[in-house]
Amino acid sequence: MKIDQDLALALRLADAAGDAIRPHFRSGLNAERKDDASPVTVADRAAEEAMRRILKAEVPRDEIVGEEFGTEAGTSGRTWVLDPIDGTVSFIAGRPIFGTLIALLVDGWPVMGVIDQPILGERWVGASGMATTFNGREVRTRTCRQLSDAMLATTGPQYFDDHQGDHFMALAARTDHRRMMMGGDCYNYGLLASGQIDLVCEAGLKLHDWAALVPIVEGAGGTMCDWNGEPLHAASGGEVLAIGDPARLEDVVEALACHH
Amino acid sequence: MKIDQDLALALRLADAAGDAIRPHFRSGLNAERKDDASPVTVADRAAEEAMRRILKAEVPRDEIVGEEFGTEAGTSGRTWVLDPIDGTVSFIAGRPIFGTLIALLVDGWPVMGVIDQPILGERWVGASGMATTFNGREVRTRTCRQLSDAMLATTGPQYFDDHQGDHFMALAARTDHRRMMMGGDCYNYGLLASGQIDLVCEAGLKLHDWAALVPIVEGAGGTMCDWNGEPLHAASGGEVLAIGDPARLEDVVEALACHH
Repeated sequence: MKIDQDLALALRLADAAGDAIRPHFRSGLNAERKDDASPVTVADRAAEEAMRRILKAEVPRDEIVGEEFGTEAGTSGRTWVLDPIDGTVSFIAGRPIFGTLIALLVDGWPVMGVIDQPILGERWVGASGMATTFNGREVRTRTCRQLSDAMLATTGPQYFDDHQGDHFMALAARTDHRRMMMGGDCYNYGLLASGQIDLVCEAGLKLHDWAALVPIVEGAGGTMCDWNGEPLHAASGGEVLAIGDPARLEDVVEALACHH
Repeated sequence: MKIDQDLALALRLADAAGDAIRPHFRSGLNAERKDDASPVTVADRAAEEAMRRILKAEVPRDEIVGEEFGTEAGTSGRTWVLDPIDGTVSFIAGRPIFGTLIALLVDGWPVMGVIDQPILGERWVGASGMATTFNGREVRTRTCRQLSDAMLATTGPQYFDDHQGDHFMALAARTDHRRMMMGGDCYNYGLLASGQIDLVCEAGLKLHDWAALVPIVEGAGGTMCDWNGEPLHAASGGEVLAIGDPARLEDVVEALACHH
């Protein structure tokens, strides 16, 4: 019953992160700047520290990779990947659609993931061989009969380079582009797992941005892959697709590729 | 004390709209299509009907302009402008950052506005000569010392034509573009009134999309205008700016205009 213990541990991490984050939401706290000018808050660091503290006590042989404090090597072949606040811009703006991401990887493959929204009290949990849950209830991705019906989401065009942007637009043009949705980060993948939207297409993601999403989307019946349709592994690049109905995988990869 | 009566009436409208909307959120309801292919839901129509019913009983001489059911003429010089679900894409996707918009105009000028988020129980209220409130507490826009510090939001680039998109990008380049935020519709203007972001820049808006926002932003110390810096009136076009710190108005209009 190792997976149950790992799940229970992941939920403790999410609880601890939420406790660290909630006091800072809409608190008027000024955002610091990192060298790359992405926004970082006290909440971000406090949440990651709280999660690392628990992991070091409970699973000291596991590797830890966190957005804020980098990599702490392990010897077990297992890696916890932490993103305390995914969607920092939404967090800073006071929009409660950011999330804490917690993933467990074995030999570089994501086997368990949590998206936790601590302000709304919303939590998606997924693991290999289990049905994904949202606040404890099983959820499923929805059927998408044709690409032209698909509702597509992405966090923003500013995260694509020119080349990626052209390919994204080629895909968007084949979907129901009147209902294309911007903003949202990890929250969009949760909504896809819940059968609310059909596709998410992003680029420039780091391992901590996508690792937790894979077991959640796949445990709900969807698929995640890179822009070439290849499975996502710790060594993958940052071009990520989530597809609610796996029957549309080939159409999506073809539409993305066909930009001239 | 006419304004108090009008405010009380507006809050009754918001309550009624919320009651009509909540049962349909994440209910798996399929969206119908209008001729222009924008998403419309049963919730949208039910909410507008509920609001119109109250207005016809309480203020039968006032004009009503609603997103779903058009214009019903009046004789008082007063106009209620209703958008039952602003941010329909977010609503359909299950993202609780859409809003019900209620505005009162006198001779075409917005004098009162409500943004109501019925899932989160969040409500911004603004009226001429009053301080804007968020859930009953006064809110203020924040200071923005220079345009390069400004956090800018817009619902999505797909709502700009090519020309507008070029001007928007000219503005974005002068702001803190690493923190530019996409998605959000009316919710972004509420966040601006609460001092969480600095600028919202949009195009293609209809009267019902922006009328309620003006008293809310201005009652919090900000300013709203068109892309030339002119005040918004019922006859204005759809290019809309919200600026938290009015000291930046000139910089913003200049940055928007300076695209070559």
